[in-house]
Amino acid sequence: MVRIVGISGSLRPDSYSYKALSLAAARSQALGAEVEILDLRQMQLPFCTGEKEYPDYPDVERLRDVVNRADGLILATPEYHGSLSGVMKNALDLMSFDQLSNKVSGLISILGGQSNSNALNDLRVILRWVHGWVIPEQIAIGQAWQAFGPDGKLLDEKLSERFDQFTQSLVENTRKIRGVS
Amino acid sequence: MVRIVGISGSLRPDSYSYKALSLAAARSQALGAEVEILDLRQMQLPFCTGEKEYPDYPDVERLRDVVNRADGLILATPEYHGSLSGVMKNALDLMSFDQLSNKVSGLISILGGQSNSNALNDLRVILRWVHGWVIPEQIAIGQAWQAFGPDGKLLDEKLSERFDQFTQSLVENTRKIRGVS
Amino acid sequence: MVRIVGISGSLRPDSYSYKALSLAAARSQALGAEVEILDLRQMQLPFCTGEKEYPDYPDVERLRDVVNRADGLILATPEYHGSLSGVMKNALDLMSFDQLSNKVSGLISILGGQSNSNALNDLRVILRWVHGWVIPEQIAIGQAWQAFGPDGKLLDEKLSERFDQFTQSLVENTRKIRGVS
Amino acid sequence: MVRIVGISGSLRPDSYSYKALSLAAARSQALGAEVEILDLRQMQLPFCTGEKEYPDYPDVERLRDVVNRADGLILATPEYHGSLSGVMKNALDLMSFDQLSNKVSGLISILGGQSNSNALNDLRVILRWVHGWVIPEQIAIGQAWQAFGPDGKLLDEKLSERFDQFTQSLVENTRKIRGVS
Repeated sequence: MVRIVGISGSLRPDSYSYKALSLAAARSQALGAEVEILDLRQMQLPFCTGEKEYPDYPDVERLRDVVNRADGLILATPEYHGSLSGVMKNALDLMSFDQLSNKVSGLISILGGQSNSNALNDLRVILRWVHGWVIPEQIAIGQAWQAFGPDGKLLDEKLSERFDQFTQSLVENTRKIRGVS
Repeated sequence: MVRIVGISGSLRPDSYSYKALSLAAARSQALGAEVEILDLRQMQLPFCTGEKEYPDYPDVERLRDVVNRADGLILATPEYHGSLSGVMKNALDLMSFDQLSNKVSGLISILGGQSNSNALNDLRVILRWVHGWVIPEQIAIGQAWQAFGPDGKLLDEKLSERFDQFTQSLVENTRKIRGVS
Repeated sequence: MVRIVGISGSLRPDSYSYKALSLAAARSQALGAEVEILDLRQMQLPFCTGEKEYPDYPDVERLRDVVNRADGLILATPEYHGSLSGVMKNALDLMSFDQLSNKVSGLISILGGQSNSNALNDLRVILRWVHGWVIPEQIAIGQAWQAFGPDGKLLDEKLSERFDQFTQSLVENTRKIRGVS
Repeated sequence: MVRIVGISGSLRPDSYSYKALSLAAARSQALGAEVEILDLRQMQLPFCTGEKEYPDYPDVERLRDVVNRADGLILATPEYHGSLSGVMKNALDLMSFDQLSNKVSGLISILGGQSNSNALNDLRVILRWVHGWVIPEQIAIGQAWQAFGPDGKLLDEKLSERFDQFTQSLVENTRKIRGVS
């Protein structure tokens, strides 16, 4: 059974990245994937020092273990200063080829202003660097403060359809590329 | 008098980024610039939560104050996974237009393997995002483990000349663009 | 006197890139710059073969001569497939360090759909490659079909102000960096 | 049977891009793919004007037809000024979603100096823009003038192995993603 892990790159209590990730996770589950979300707000991760092991931070091992077992990833990041958040990059820095090679990722970015694909472009090249696949479908949510209703659902029907195409492509192509059901 | 602040994006005790930054800082000083280095290994910075203020972390204010007063920056980052380090991006995330707009930056990246300009490209676009200038001269040090002698000096004469051109351009053009002496 | 050359990367008869370029050129002139526009639709340029000389195409020399004499450039490109047009890239391929090093460029992109900075990012890195400067201010005009009035003027006042800031920065900083009046 | 089309972005008579493309094409064929090479030096393609049809240039239709029928692509471009060649970009500009969506590409770049991934990064984002897949394996051949023997074979054994991994991934994953044999 295809396993997907979701990681959100925002530490804000009321994070839109986390909301978007939750939506994509739920729809991936509805398509038959086993989905686990790693909430970085609930984890104690250190800044990457270039060391391999972080014995004082057992959550580093938890992060690596969960991603190790996954076939695919959903990465949802706020766009800070025209790129992914340092929080998200640092979480990726704590992993390596062992966790990320040959995995299939889908990318989501969250912006306060007009939508843009800078953070998504940088993430795409970063994941390639560790020999990962990235699906062509990607989602940038501009002016995120007006994108979600109080129930966490998307207000724009077209954006909601984009999430459907995104998760469908992620689940289907992860199955194909990874040879899992 | 032109003020330059140097920031290194590695937390490794024996960081090559820090060595490269120190060299560029010393040469900028020799050209008449007032240079201050912020050593992130000695500072207590939090992960950026999107909040403006971090009262529990006075070093956030220190970071902002020093960059506020600067005309130019030297940013030296290890290239992790084909981009700048999460540590460096997070430090930038803790600042904003107030600190970085109209400042002039010079960029250095450090790589374990073959040299590459991915981290430099990402940094260039990030600094543009906050309306900063980036000088055309940039330095990527490949196979950094064999670049420095035990005294911290560069072993390759051509690379050393590149540092001269880099700092000369940074100091000279920061003066021109910022209108300082 | 500061000299600016403008190049537009679209060959469409009713090109929006050319309209945007004309506006930026006129405002640069109003700020005291000497401006020349190279209209690629009126020039016979070959595809770059990697050769230095193109004796059958005198317009290659004209392109190089005009850019040689310039201090700054305005490059206006349509965004095709998330990057600059092949037409614009080919024109840049026909030049080299001789023409483009140490020149100061301002970048404009034109999009049919939602605005985006992909073409601008690629152009920024390309110009850096030939050791050129690029000003932080840049303009992406989304849904360009509704941006201009029948007289070629911009319909959106805020976008028009952006052109003012763009040309002001270009002319002023080209003067500073190039040391011309 | 999986169909691959190869396109090279150099017009040089003795093009290294074409040599690299030929090697990758031959190895793809050995893995059971049907491979066709489009040699842009032998085709009469116009500069893209944004028009849909180019009745004076039947090679535009040939380009589109061949890519239409393909499942995968090998794109080999010289790196000019830190990006793909204008020649290659213009060929891509002459196509669109019809030809390129959901196709699987493998990317090769050729450099005169030190190897770099700028052209490959730009191509990756461009192909994503038209909803194409790009395999994680990619090849940048630095100092290409010393890479090939007089028989067109690669002199460096490790680089030759990289070509094996590259074509294996391309053929295998194009089969998986496209559901062809």
